[in-house]
Amino acid sequence: MGELILTTYDWVPEPPRGFVRDLRVRWALEEAGLPYKVASTTFANRGAEHFKHQPFGQVPWLTDGDVSIFESGAILLHLGGLSDKLMPTDPHSRSEVTEWLFAALASVEAASQPWSFFMFSGDTDETPMRKFFDSFLEARLKHMETVLTKHEWLAGDFSVADILMADVLRLVDRFDGLATYPACRAYVSRATARPSFQKAYADQMAHFAAAD
Amino acid sequence: MGELILTTYDWVPEPPRGFVRDLRVRWALEEAGLPYKVASTTFANRGAEHFKHQPFGQVPWLTDGDVSIFESGAILLHLGGLSDKLMPTDPHSRSEVTEWLFAALASVEAASQPWSFFMFSGDTDETPMRKFFDSFLEARLKHMETVLTKHEWLAGDFSVADILMADVLRLVDRFDGLATYPACRAYVSRATARPSFQKAYADQMAHFAAAD
Repeated sequence: MGELILTTYDWVPEPPRGFVRDLRVRWALEEAGLPYKVASTTFANRGAEHFKHQPFGQVPWLTDGDVSIFESGAILLHLGGLSDKLMPTDPHSRSEVTEWLFAALASVEAASQPWSFFMFSGDTDETPMRKFFDSFLEARLKHMETVLTKHEWLAGDFSVADILMADVLRLVDRFDGLATYPACRAYVSRATARPSFQKAYADQMAHFAAAD
Repeated sequence: MGELILTTYDWVPEPPRGFVRDLRVRWALEEAGLPYKVASTTFANRGAEHFKHQPFGQVPWLTDGDVSIFESGAILLHLGGLSDKLMPTDPHSRSEVTEWLFAALASVEAASQPWSFFMFSGDTDETPMRKFFDSFLEARLKHMETVLTKHEWLAGDFSVADILMADVLRLVDRFDGLATYPACRAYVSRATARPSFQKAYADQMAHFAAAD
């Protein structure tokens, strides 16, 4: 392991604060107790250096010595390899954590993100496509409700998979989308009650507020 | 490595044929020359055994001996660990392949999938949300165009990251969404020209046709 440096924007507008994806990485770093620094890249003008680290001009990215990694899922998997507080070391458990990391993004966020765009837009037209995206999310939440009724955490002990899944579901909860999914809501509550989340959240809010 | 068994649906309707996600796994298995079997699960009635392997009731899943893995991204990462034809063995390259696997899903498919739902629906209303999703995809394709103008493959040699990204972009191309992104379109063409893709595609089409 080299020096860990997490890069996020220097500033963002109010609405995404508390939900910028560096939070997932801060949360994991705090959970593992790994030493790290936070660096900023300009939100307003994303230049060549930014795109060198993150080809879509997004954040976060993490450098670990001379390795630079983008995509929150890939960063969490990398951090999982650095601490057994984030991912167990036996191959079966690692495989479970890995599949749930992908599931949080490709099965749940794939449905919750488009839905959240409708919510952010304030558009209330009950178009067929709006109904389609509502149903798409509901189908995924229904299955997550079954999983989270049976399991406290997704893959045995708390892991990076829970950091990612809870962060994805947290955005659904923001728009009250978990009202009829009590196990999902309870999962978000117990995940975000962890001191590591509280610290990560407060640090992100302070980071952006400092730039106002 | 145990015996590799890929499970997909026994049958699907015409429209998704050639695009069901077992194709990504078939493609990787063919590319690596790994021995495998294909098993079927019923499309019509998804029971407890199905949900035990795939908690969202989707396909595919892969069993490798006594390990069962769902999520195409997680399966590809697992197969990458079994063959250096799918993922190089040095840690830097592995990290690159991993981040691009996540990027294919969380940065590109996250935008292309909602867009494709509009395309499948045949809905042509130019609503503000429709325009939003069009722009969301365009933003991601613009950056992929830059990347693919400079690189033949995403992470050095051809890897599982290219299987996933090319399969994601292939669905955009199906609806002519790559017309103004020539590097993306050329990338899809050279990826799908590989004998491993041709075999995987023909096998999937034959698998579903056999059940008609």
